[in-house]
Amino acid sequence: MSGSLVIAGLGPGAESLVTPEVSAALAEATDIVGYGPYVARIPAREGLTLHATDNRQELERARHALAMAASGRRVVVVSSGDPGVFAMAAAVFEALEGMPGHHELDIRVLPGITAMLAASGRLGAPLGHDFCAINLSDNLKPFALVERRVRLAAEADFAMAFYNPRSMSRPDQFARVLDILLEACGPERLISFARAVSTPEERLETLPLGEARPEMADMRTLVLVGNAATRRVGRFVYTPRSAS
Amino acid sequence: MSGSLVIAGLGPGAESLVTPEVSAALAEATDIVGYGPYVARIPAREGLTLHATDNRQELERARHALAMAASGRRVVVVSSGDPGVFAMAAAVFEALEGMPGHHELDIRVLPGITAMLAASGRLGAPLGHDFCAINLSDNLKPFALVERRVRLAAEADFAMAFYNPRSMSRPDQFARVLDILLEACGPERLISFARAVSTPEERLETLPLGEARPEMADMRTLVLVGNAATRRVGRFVYTPRSAS
Repeated sequence: MSGSLVIAGLGPGAESLVTPEVSAALAEATDIVGYGPYVARIPAREGLTLHATDNRQELERARHALAMAASGRRVVVVSSGDPGVFAMAAAVFEALEGMPGHHELDIRVLPGITAMLAASGRLGAPLGHDFCAINLSDNLKPFALVERRVRLAAEADFAMAFYNPRSMSRPDQFARVLDILLEACGPERLISFARAVSTPEERLETLPLGEARPEMADMRTLVLVGNAATRRVGRFVYTPRSAS
Repeated sequence: MSGSLVIAGLGPGAESLVTPEVSAALAEATDIVGYGPYVARIPAREGLTLHATDNRQELERARHALAMAASGRRVVVVSSGDPGVFAMAAAVFEALEGMPGHHELDIRVLPGITAMLAASGRLGAPLGHDFCAINLSDNLKPFALVERRVRLAAEADFAMAFYNPRSMSRPDQFARVLDILLEACGPERLISFARAVSTPEERLETLPLGEARPEMADMRTLVLVGNAATRRVGRFVYTPRSAS
């Protein structure tokens, strides 16, 4: 039997946002690998082994998945959102780099609805013009690089999506990002906090940057910042398609 | 009967990338509105009216959809990819801005798999680190702004996704973008051309920037440019999660 490795995006939480392509891959899998809360979304069934691991063990998890696929299993590595956006796809290719004997494996990356697009849809169209996505965690990069990118993004007048804005282990860095934005974009710029989008715990809030507080974000929050033209219409927030 | 307006993303082309949420909205619609080739993806059925319009008529199309919803129809405006990324959602909210009597309408935006994430998955994980998305069309913004954003994105070392890179009416601007990138990123930087991803006409190509030619892109192509660390592993392209 020839094994395979699929890296699949489960979307932000709701089952109605899982693509049929991903559902089909899950139905054919012999092994599911991923961070505990994501693996917990997969129903148990005969012939399926669930391998739930801790957070921050991405490389180890990826190597394990590659080794199982090489041994003939049909392995699906699950990520929330899209696997290519601050998730498991890059970790698998990093692991693959160190395992040259596995380069010819059957590997496929299946896209999913990433958090910023789910959040954007719930809010209106805040990413309706050019935009950027920045992971605010400094686990894998110096925080000075985060600061530099936020400054340049503001200078380019990109709308911005921030993943992993704030955690217990680094409560102060998001405050620093808000300071940079306030200086670069002014207090009237719109900022949205979208927590646990598409789940029963969903919470959405949009306000001017001058009223934003660091405590409004946690690790389950996606933060969106508008560009200079972003505005409200009725209960929605949107960024016009045109710019001057 | 109370009408509704859903702005739905059909994904890049394959039916297996349409979310169940969007499929359910399409099944309940009385009217489908959109650009001809996207409306053509919806099967005809009793009780469903298809309204196919030309390209570049987004605002008119959006007003028509809002008016039908206000009259009690269940209208779905379809976009390819995600409706919030260079697609119909922003156009609907622009139209809504000019129709204050319609602000309380039942309006929902349903996300879809946007082209850059479908392309990224087929290539590996080229957007595995901070990235930006830029629409290269100058229909609605001056081309000088495109140039400025590409320069700042290179300075920030973002991976980049370019939508609408090149059309018959503006064949030379993409050549200018390639020149800017070559100057800012050097000839070894990886660039990928992903055409018609997930359809039978799909074509993928990755090469060093120094070998890229403007003719490699057309309006059905999504162009991805790596950051300074983006590299190949086996037949894949990926951007590592870490940066220094």
